[in-house]
Amino acid sequence: MSGPIEFFFDFSSPYGYFASCIVDALGERHGRDVVWKPIMIGSAFKASGNQPLVGQPLKGAYSIRDWERLARLWQVPYRLPDPFPIATLAPSRITWWLAESDPRQAHAYARAVFHAYFAEGRDVSQLPEATALAAACGADAGQAAAVAADPAWKQRLREETDAAIARGVFGSPFLMVDGEPFWGADRLWMVEAWLERGGW
Amino acid sequence: MSGPIEFFFDFSSPYGYFASCIVDALGERHGRDVVWKPIMIGSAFKASGNQPLVGQPLKGAYSIRDWERLARLWQVPYRLPDPFPIATLAPSRITWWLAESDPRQAHAYARAVFHAYFAEGRDVSQLPEATALAAACGADAGQAAAVAADPAWKQRLREETDAAIARGVFGSPFLMVDGEPFWGADRLWMVEAWLERGGW
Repeated sequence: MSGPIEFFFDFSSPYGYFASCIVDALGERHGRDVVWKPIMIGSAFKASGNQPLVGQPLKGAYSIRDWERLARLWQVPYRLPDPFPIATLAPSRITWWLAESDPRQAHAYARAVFHAYFAEGRDVSQLPEATALAAACGADAGQAAAVAADPAWKQRLREETDAAIARGVFGSPFLMVDGEPFWGADRLWMVEAWLERGGW
Repeated sequence: MSGPIEFFFDFSSPYGYFASCIVDALGERHGRDVVWKPIMIGSAFKASGNQPLVGQPLKGAYSIRDWERLARLWQVPYRLPDPFPIATLAPSRITWWLAESDPRQAHAYARAVFHAYFAEGRDVSQLPEATALAAACGADAGQAAAVAADPAWKQRLREETDAAIARGVFGSPFLMVDGEPFWGADRLWMVEAWLERGGW
């Protein structure tokens, strides 16, 4: 099989951001497309009983430290944004909207959103930021703003999230390769092994 | 710095078992001793708000699948034991006791306990199993049985667990290298990178 790698994430997830920085190259090494799928991680947390990392005793402090060292190791620009975490409904809905007509544009937009939030500290939950980034990718800012408030695109994001959860997705990042689930930026080495061997 | 790698685990942890199968070789590759430190993961869970994996919606099923594929990938004998999870107080106390007089014997015993539980399905929470394994490592079975019920060794295990939690340990496996914390069997690649580079 050589279907696309499905890359599920929430724009507010640092581990999702780190994965986003290397997942395309991973796909390229193995001749696989990577389909970026933003979801509402809050819904996945409700379904799985998970909690946001920051605020958890011990694990929260560990995560903050781990994000910093991961950024140094993978040499990607990063600083913990403020505010953090944020609600990422607007850029998520805009991504799904863009994907409908132009998957490449959606991909470029999603990359730009992650970068704006985690490398530049821009609050992408805010409509002006989310739409400016869409405009920078060649989309119409006014249309993007309308999409962010459109019940149809709210519904689409909800459906994509529910469908992901129904397939077992419970965190960000979460990758599906030939139906095989991989959770976490710290599991990309295993995805690579899976692709190299065609499973095991 | 070239101090030992501290390897914290609970004998009932599948990821702890998988890490135990490769952590010594990891240490050897970098000229580091590995000190095996059993703790009471239940106490760490209380401190961190974590929960046992099995029984968690979505994540539980994912973990069971992940253990099986990790066993195949790393080619280590494994089957999910029944009963699982178990209380591992007896073998943990015996390990600390053995370490006091003979760290090599403690190490051999800890390896044997993990193997008995995860490869052979022996219930190492039971005193006859825990002490038979000690005897097989050259210790006195009667003494081992006494140790398992001895308030002094109960206290020692409690102290080691509390000390680990105070240093940020919240899961199993958990490695400390030159004071740097690494959580999870899926992070051993990062420990390897840390040792190769002497940090970053």
